[in-house]
Amino acid sequence: MADPRMIAVDWGTTRLRAWLVDADGAILDQTAADDGIASVKPGDFPSTLRRHVGGWLARNPGLPVMMAGMVGSRNGWSEVPYAGCPAGAAELAAGMLRFDLGEGSRAAIVPGLMSRDAAGLPDVMRGEETKLMGCGVTDGTVVMPGTHSKWARMSGGRIASFTSYMTGDVFGAVKDHTMAGKLAEAPADEAGFARGLATARAGGGLTHKLFSARTLVLAGELPGRQVEPYLSGLLIGEEVAAGLAAHPGTSEVALVADGVFERAYGQAFADNGIAVRVLAPDEVFIRGLLAIVHAAA
Amino acid sequence: MADPRMIAVDWGTTRLRAWLVDADGAILDQTAADDGIASVKPGDFPSTLRRHVGGWLARNPGLPVMMAGMVGSRNGWSEVPYAGCPAGAAELAAGMLRFDLGEGSRAAIVPGLMSRDAAGLPDVMRGEETKLMGCGVTDGTVVMPGTHSKWARMSGGRIASFTSYMTGDVFGAVKDHTMAGKLAEAPADEAGFARGLATARAGGGLTHKLFSARTLVLAGELPGRQVEPYLSGLLIGEEVAAGLAAHPGTSEVALVADGVFERAYGQAFADNGIAVRVLAPDEVFIRGLLAIVHAAA
Repeated sequence: MADPRMIAVDWGTTRLRAWLVDADGAILDQTAADDGIASVKPGDFPSTLRRHVGGWLARNPGLPVMMAGMVGSRNGWSEVPYAGCPAGAAELAAGMLRFDLGEGSRAAIVPGLMSRDAAGLPDVMRGEETKLMGCGVTDGTVVMPGTHSKWARMSGGRIASFTSYMTGDVFGAVKDHTMAGKLAEAPADEAGFARGLATARAGGGLTHKLFSARTLVLAGELPGRQVEPYLSGLLIGEEVAAGLAAHPGTSEVALVADGVFERAYGQAFADNGIAVRVLAPDEVFIRGLLAIVHAAA
Repeated sequence: MADPRMIAVDWGTTRLRAWLVDADGAILDQTAADDGIASVKPGDFPSTLRRHVGGWLARNPGLPVMMAGMVGSRNGWSEVPYAGCPAGAAELAAGMLRFDLGEGSRAAIVPGLMSRDAAGLPDVMRGEETKLMGCGVTDGTVVMPGTHSKWARMSGGRIASFTSYMTGDVFGAVKDHTMAGKLAEAPADEAGFARGLATARAGGGLTHKLFSARTLVLAGELPGRQVEPYLSGLLIGEEVAAGLAAHPGTSEVALVADGVFERAYGQAFADNGIAVRVLAPDEVFIRGLLAIVHAAA
């Protein structure tokens, strides 16, 4: 068994996930728990971390603990100022917050990034910058679906700019808290998803098209079981249309996703004639942290 | 005092409002209550109506009771099939559900309307078709802001087509149930509204721009008290942009609104160089019912 090189920690709002990895990113051990920063009291971050990775640290004294995600936000362990774009592994390493964990252990939190869109609106990420460093994309577009999906433009191995879309967040709110989701029935019939993608490609504003999740049912043209997948298709389709408009000339994207996101976004990109290279989220996260460790050395 | 000509009832999801009016639409008496159809049990519609307008009926035997709104929906008193577009007072009168209330009283429920957008998606209204008959707009665009805003194209005095935007509904869901509204502080500072309108005019998808209600605060560029008006401006601005794109060449709209809607949409239209003629919602509703009564006679 290879020597451990690092403890990688993806510490988000709802989850803490950690991996013991070797210098090639191979996973030697792993753990995960619902100890996201939202459920950790101020001051309890060191003990929470130790509860999950203390055994690894005891067996590997001095092993660096590399953390990324919301752990570096205002409500996390300690606020790490956003780095600016463009940023590569060197800039992220330079912006890390480094500190001593005691007993010879060292930790670091990778900074999030701030970007500006064409209109000057700020955009932020925490955690995705690390994944981007592990994608192996020197020049191109990387898409990371989720509650707040991120589209990043890579240039010369650095993150040139990025854009967030509140796709998952708005989907949940619209489905559960507007009339658009009121006629939804379970279990879901996924045939509604392609229908939603098609509606997204048609003209008209999003708040108009969302209303069709209701009117199509009233008109007897959409089964209630297709409503939820229809809304999902509509919102993912809107994201893909807006993202491609903001990245003209894109013919291929790297898609950091698995499971339902991989299938849904894969279908949305195929619909738009875009080739997709799928990358596993955990793998690129670990590779990204190794790249940042390497740059910091 | 003029003779009563009609009892007009605007019976929506949450409210019941009724007016005793003369042949010119002058209000002789009025009442309102939280007895919307959502709170009326099936079978209780006749007694609920009688509780509110029974006194007027007793003093004016045979006076017609004209109703419009969600009272004609699946969950209302009785489902009245949607009429199709184009529709004027004659078509709405022909589609009315007429019935006897007993003791010589007659009632009618005006049908809602169904329309299709350019993509073939169905759209529906119940209640607004009546207001449109009372606007006095023969040819032009009428905008009716609300939970589900309606934009109608009038041609030759008839409703040629219309489009819904879930502006108010999505605003509530985004504000209360997504991260976009999480940093909002009270009391609201209305300066955020103009800022939201400006963001709506910039490019990029809606779900991207909604995220800026969070990131602008994180960047120290938007006070928390401006978040809610900012989101409102963003969503109303998106509606106005989409509506104007769907009604090319529009230089003036009739705006059926009062209070906060009148101010907010007035500002949004002024921003886009569109002249606005404001019409009072209750007045156009009553005039619309009189026009339908006249067409039915």
